[in-house]
Amino acid sequence: MTYTHQLTLAQPYEEAVESVRAALSEQGFGVITEIDMRATFEAKLDSAAAEEVGDYVILGACNPGLARRALAAEPQLGALLPCNVIVRHGEDGHSVVEAMDPMVMVQLSDSEQVRAVAEDAGARLRAALAVLAGE
Amino acid sequence: MTYTHQLTLAQPYEEAVESVRAALSEQGFGVITEIDMRATFEAKLDSAAAEEVGDYVILGACNPGLARRALAAEPQLGALLPCNVIVRHGEDGHSVVEAMDPMVMVQLSDSEQVRAVAEDAGARLRAALAVLAGE
Repeated sequence: MTYTHQLTLAQPYEEAVESVRAALSEQGFGVITEIDMRATFEAKLDSAAAEEVGDYVILGACNPGLARRALAAEPQLGALLPCNVIVRHGEDGHSVVEAMDPMVMVQLSDSEQVRAVAEDAGARLRAALAVLAGE
Repeated sequence: MTYTHQLTLAQPYEEAVESVRAALSEQGFGVITEIDMRATFEAKLDSAAAEEVGDYVILGACNPGLARRALAAEPQLGALLPCNVIVRHGEDGHSVVEAMDPMVMVQLSDSEQVRAVAEDAGARLRAALAVLAGE
């Protein structure tokens, strides 16, 4: 299965990151974690690794109300939270945005409540990507 | 499928969190994100939500060398990184530790390199849990 929703944005990386943050916020997601992979590799590995990965951030998007419902239904679901949204450099000054598909959680969990939460989260993430795509 | 490896520790929460950090570090994992769910719910929802979830932290464990290999093989794999390890309050002063099973990535990806990285990460996480279990 594919496990992300993907979109190419006609924006350079830094601008794309800000656009993604704004679109997530409109859908009720706060960014509660942020991992700059280039900086991480520069600090923990070397410059070659940093150059190889290039501009690449993992934004951890969390809607607290949905997270509450998910954890009440299945405490271990935190192992799959938050919903990651990657922004990375693309070709020709474009950027690539990829959001984890929350239906992954439905593949892994038998809980009906988890399904309901994942469907809600998925609809919001798709709405955020649709705004970014200018739809 | 189950998507976590679970362990109950005969330690109170705060102590268990430190034990888990140390065990992850021994296996080459840095904790690069940390989400205190009780504090997040207190700040974003209300005290009732914070009490409901109780002591609960999501530690994002990352082995930079493995992350580099994973992203070189499949750039969108960042949507499933880092490997989350939850520590939460258990019964009778015990704590529950649950680590995401990296084989989840193998379920979702067709890449042979991703399988190799997931197997390596899984072996390290299981080793960390074995140390915690006193095995």
